[in-house]
Amino acid sequence: MKLLEERILSEGTVAPGGIIKVDCFLNHRLDVALLNEIGAEFGRLFASDGVNKILTVEASGIGIACIAAQYFKTPDGGIPPVVFAKKSQSLNLSQDVWTSRVKSYTHGNENIIRVSKKYLGEGDRVLIIDDFLAAGNASLGLLDIIDKSGAVCAGVGICVEKGFQPGGRMLLDRGVKLRSLAIVQLDENGGIYFDHREE
Amino acid sequence: MKLLEERILSEGTVAPGGIIKVDCFLNHRLDVALLNEIGAEFGRLFASDGVNKILTVEASGIGIACIAAQYFKTPDGGIPPVVFAKKSQSLNLSQDVWTSRVKSYTHGNENIIRVSKKYLGEGDRVLIIDDFLAAGNASLGLLDIIDKSGAVCAGVGICVEKGFQPGGRMLLDRGVKLRSLAIVQLDENGGIYFDHREE
Repeated sequence: MKLLEERILSEGTVAPGGIIKVDCFLNHRLDVALLNEIGAEFGRLFASDGVNKILTVEASGIGIACIAAQYFKTPDGGIPPVVFAKKSQSLNLSQDVWTSRVKSYTHGNENIIRVSKKYLGEGDRVLIIDDFLAAGNASLGLLDIIDKSGAVCAGVGICVEKGFQPGGRMLLDRGVKLRSLAIVQLDENGGIYFDHREE
Repeated sequence: MKLLEERILSEGTVAPGGIIKVDCFLNHRLDVALLNEIGAEFGRLFASDGVNKILTVEASGIGIACIAAQYFKTPDGGIPPVVFAKKSQSLNLSQDVWTSRVKSYTHGNENIIRVSKKYLGEGDRVLIIDDFLAAGNASLGLLDIIDKSGAVCAGVGICVEKGFQPGGRMLLDRGVKLRSLAIVQLDENGGIYFDHREE
């Protein structure tokens, strides 16, 4: 997505460890006009996938998912609800949540993410939306929860994929329909350029 | 807001300790059509307050804030950006964030919330938006950050205020323009009814 690539080039920075910082428009200060462009693009890319629910994980994915939902229509003509998995340090799991363990790349810790069983289950065609795809742990955790619930993953929509980390390849190898709006690569000087996949 | 009150009555539940559970539409599964109604109402209530930025705290406020932003126009005709304060257990604060300590009513712990100094400062007229107002700690933390940054709080927009907790009174006593779309009270049997304030 040209517009997102341009914003990454003009406003993004690269921190040590291959951290792509785009907190000025994507995950701390949110440019809601840009999120609408992103949401419209996801709507186009997954228009024929029968999406009736959008799933993300707190916190950065929530705003993007909510804006994107507006560009989808469920079979009954409504806006698909957004469900966000909650992170918790607590091991005190109740019986009525689907859970998965997720390692965080940027924090170096492990979270248990959880989704109430009431809000995900058989008959759901779920689009995963997130701001970043790097090692793929968050997406794998959400896929694990979708599998456990009996729902179907209709696809994964990512704003910024780090092309130099294995998450994208891993999802594609599992047969997931993955659409990343910007696939970032770093040259030897830490400069950003973009990869593009055939759809 | 009649529509929100109806949804609370029909789908909300009350858990021990005065916990109002509305996770089926407001803070776990998000009804994006309802969020649009809520956002439009905030847009109406704060239309004349010169809002150029919306501030919330992760995680539940983010979706509401992003949808609501679409119903505001900054003086230059754009959509105001949403900034969400990040929670962190870390005490390792860098120099370039505004911070405040916030007690969590539902978790019984304390978080340091932080906002990058780049994204809040003098000249900003900030609307705080959040899903719940109870003891008022989150709002006070955000107000504290706004004060430290030199910005001005244009108002506080809350979806569900617990009328039986002191947060609302505390904000009003500070002279804040507070608008709560539903003010929940509990009768002696734990049944929900609503208070209404003169605007």
